[in-house]
Amino acid sequence: MVEFAADPSHPRYASLLMRHRLEIAAQRGMLAESAMIAHGRGEAFDYLLGEQTIPAALEATKHALKSLCDAKHPVLCLNGNVTALACDEMLKLADRIGCPLEVNIFYRTPERMEALFTFIQERQNALGLNVTVFGEHPNGRIPGLKGPRAACHEEGILRSDVILVPLEDGDRCQALVDMGKTVLVIDLNPMSRSAQQATITIVDELSRVLTNMLEMSLPPAIDEPYHHQANLQSCLSWMAGAFERA
Amino acid sequence: MVEFAADPSHPRYASLLMRHRLEIAAQRGMLAESAMIAHGRGEAFDYLLGEQTIPAALEATKHALKSLCDAKHPVLCLNGNVTALACDEMLKLADRIGCPLEVNIFYRTPERMEALFTFIQERQNALGLNVTVFGEHPNGRIPGLKGPRAACHEEGILRSDVILVPLEDGDRCQALVDMGKTVLVIDLNPMSRSAQQATITIVDELSRVLTNMLEMSLPPAIDEPYHHQANLQSCLSWMAGAFERA
Repeated sequence: MVEFAADPSHPRYASLLMRHRLEIAAQRGMLAESAMIAHGRGEAFDYLLGEQTIPAALEATKHALKSLCDAKHPVLCLNGNVTALACDEMLKLADRIGCPLEVNIFYRTPERMEALFTFIQERQNALGLNVTVFGEHPNGRIPGLKGPRAACHEEGILRSDVILVPLEDGDRCQALVDMGKTVLVIDLNPMSRSAQQATITIVDELSRVLTNMLEMSLPPAIDEPYHHQANLQSCLSWMAGAFERA
Repeated sequence: MVEFAADPSHPRYASLLMRHRLEIAAQRGMLAESAMIAHGRGEAFDYLLGEQTIPAALEATKHALKSLCDAKHPVLCLNGNVTALACDEMLKLADRIGCPLEVNIFYRTPERMEALFTFIQERQNALGLNVTVFGEHPNGRIPGLKGPRAACHEEGILRSDVILVPLEDGDRCQALVDMGKTVLVIDLNPMSRSAQQATITIVDELSRVLTNMLEMSLPPAIDEPYHHQANLQSCLSWMAGAFERA
C-alpha cells in the first residue's frame, strides 16, 4: 500500500505500519485535525487488549459479518481514518460481500473529499477492483443530524438495512440506530457512546477485524447468540484485567 | 497563552484547550510527528482517571515537589509536548523553585530546537520572567544513550541530582536513573517503562500537576512516606475501576 521500511518481525510492526499510513494520509490532506489524537486514544485501549483479538471481539466479528451477509442492502462506511488505515481491506470486504462503500466524514470539505476519493480510486486500480463508492455527490440526509455531517447517499447509507461504521462518532451512530438500522461498530473503547449504542460492537483494532472478516467463510459459522451488553462487559473485564495483572 | 474561543464552563474545556495548544505548536514546528498520537494515548488514560487528580497522584505530586525543594541542583526538563502544553507553568515553577529548565527532545533537529526556544522566549517575555533555559548548545552527553537524544547540558541535566521529566521516553528515563539521579516522572500510563522506572511517578495530566505544584507551599507538607510500587498500584486499581464501574 505504501513504502514502509520496518521489519515485519519487529514486535511493534503492525502498530508502526498503522502510524505510517496515517502520516501518509495526513500529508495527502485526507484527515481531520483530530485524527492523530483519536488514533492515539485507540492505541491506548489496544494496549490494554494486548494488541490482540480477544475472544469476545472475535465472536462479535462473526456476528457482524453474518449480519452483513444476511442483509438486503448492506453498506460499509469509510471516514478519513478508516480510509487511511484500511482502505484495501474495506475494498476487498465490500467486493467479497458484493455491497457498496460510502465515504461519510464528520468534517466534510471538498478538499478532503477529493483527497479521499483520489486515494480510494488509486487503491481500486492497484487491487483491480471496481467496488461502487458513494459519497461524492450526496443526495440524501440522515435525520437528526445537522449540517454537512448529515449528508449521505440514497442508494448507500439511506436505504441500507445493515451498516458497518468503523471508528464512528457517537452522534451519527445514534442517528443511524434511530433510523432502525442494524448498526455494526468497530471501536477500541467499549465505553464510548458508539460502542454502547450500536447493535453489534467489535472491540478490536480495525485492520485486525477486517483481516479476520476476510479470512472467515461467508456466511461465517456462528457458535452462540450475540448479547450486546454481555459482550461489552467481557471486553471491559479484559481491559480492567490489564491493570490488575500489571 | 493562545487565542481560544471555547467557553471555560464547557465540560471538556481543559481537554479542548490542551488540543488547541498542540495544534498551535504543530503549526509552529515545535512537535515531533508522533506528538498527537502520544497525546491521544494520554487522553485515554486520563479518561480512565475521570480527568481528575486522584489521591495517589496528589500524594506523589507533594513528594516530587518536596524532592525538588530539597535538591542541591534541581532541573526541570521540557520536550516538545511539554512546551506546547504547559510552557507557562513550567517557567513559573522553575522561577518559584529557583532552578533552570532544560529543553531535551527525542527527535532533535535545529529547526525544532529553534521553534521551541523562540516560543519559550516569547512566554518568558509575556510573563516577565528570566529563567535560565539550557539545551540550545549542549556540551555534555547522557551515558548509555545514542545519537542526538543523548545531548544535554553540563550545568543542567548532567550535574542535576533531582530531575523532573514530564512525558519522558522510557530509554532516557532509564539512563537518568542509571546515573543515580532522583527522577521525577509525570505520566498518565502507570504501566509505561518511564512510570515504572522513575523514583517518583505522578500519574496525572501535566497541566493539572503543575497547577497543583504552583498552589502548594514550599516545601509542601508531607503526610506519609512515598512508596513507589504502592502508589502505582493505587493508580492501576483506580483505572481498573473505571472499567468495572462502566
